[in-house]
Amino acid sequence: MSATPSPSPPRPPVFDDAFRERLGDLFAWRRDVRRFRRDPVAETLTDRLLDLAQLSPSVGNSQPWRLIRVASEARREAIRENFRRCNADALADYQGERARIYATLKLAGLVDAPLQLAVFCDRATAQGHGLGARTMPETLDYSVVGMISFLWLAARASGLGVGWVSILDPAAAARDLGAPASHKLIAYLCLGWPEEEHIDPELVRHDWQARTPLGRAVLTV
Amino acid sequence: MSATPSPSPPRPPVFDDAFRERLGDLFAWRRDVRRFRRDPVAETLTDRLLDLAQLSPSVGNSQPWRLIRVASEARREAIRENFRRCNADALADYQGERARIYATLKLAGLVDAPLQLAVFCDRATAQGHGLGARTMPETLDYSVVGMISFLWLAARASGLGVGWVSILDPAAAARDLGAPASHKLIAYLCLGWPEEEHIDPELVRHDWQARTPLGRAVLTV
Repeated sequence: MSATPSPSPPRPPVFDDAFRERLGDLFAWRRDVRRFRRDPVAETLTDRLLDLAQLSPSVGNSQPWRLIRVASEARREAIRENFRRCNADALADYQGERARIYATLKLAGLVDAPLQLAVFCDRATAQGHGLGARTMPETLDYSVVGMISFLWLAARASGLGVGWVSILDPAAAARDLGAPASHKLIAYLCLGWPEEEHIDPELVRHDWQARTPLGRAVLTV
Repeated sequence: MSATPSPSPPRPPVFDDAFRERLGDLFAWRRDVRRFRRDPVAETLTDRLLDLAQLSPSVGNSQPWRLIRVASEARREAIRENFRRCNADALADYQGERARIYATLKLAGLVDAPLQLAVFCDRATAQGHGLGARTMPETLDYSVVGMISFLWLAARASGLGVGWVSILDPAAAARDLGAPASHKLIAYLCLGWPEEEHIDPELVRHDWQARTPLGRAVLTV
């Protein structure tokens, strides 16, 4: 028996309608941002966002996310060159009107974004002891995606935009950034203060792909 | 020129410190829930949550998520049997103290959860015209994971718990649920009102895996 009383456990928060409404606004106004101002992002803000993001779930509590902050001009140029190459290949796959529209799209903020994070999954982590990943090892990668979702929302709640760049050769990017062999590139993220804010997605706004109402569940069995 | 003035675009929301603090609480108190009460989840709530979840980002605006709501006892029993088989195999892989702890863990709420959703990625969708998925086709799957993250947070903000079950043979589950061949199982979700609320993750609470402070970025290059 202890001489000091044990502290009472923290009380669960109660979320009200006003909070839920604001959360809905956050979801609706989260955007994939490709147009950034060049103003820097304060170190303290970056740290806070990364701490919040890591409250996201992970399979077996494996926390398999590994981040490389890409700061040097040489590394950034390697990523831009990778993007330019992959984007030219992608454009060459489209024909006619599709190709014309594709060529007009701004698909990355790699030139201007002040903060750039390459996000990896450590496929070799021992943390979590493999729990939950035996039959679905891809859940390790999915855990990293969950972390990115949390980061995105936390960033937007602070007025910061996030853009996810996937028009990259992931193996070349990992090599150019010096990532260990067990690290799989999940995303390359551009972060910064957005030049503009709008509720419609970039690809809707610029005539690539409308949003489709998909219903709430295609099927009940 | 139009006779009626065009409506002014919606004004971006401004999020304040109070909202950011509540959002941090939401992140911190989101849990993977495996202990559910059996009270039903109202249809209107389910619909609202699924609408909110679909505000999540997707590669090329492809919205590749497809849901099957698993309602019948026969289908639910097929999933439980799948889980029991995979869980027994997983247990057999552990030795000694690890095996002992594993056997004590409650890893799914498949018996009690009133709402169960199998979440798939339609790998064959034409929506998005392949944009962003040419060099990283797995971003389609990742888009579905993002939707699940949004669903999880929206659910928790309404007091509803979510548990992600991955101790399953995904191909067998997809077959048992009658999913089309192009649909890849990303997650099997249990939803319902949690029996208990706590801030520490299940796997921390039950001695499987502590949270590890990973820092904010392992490396700057």
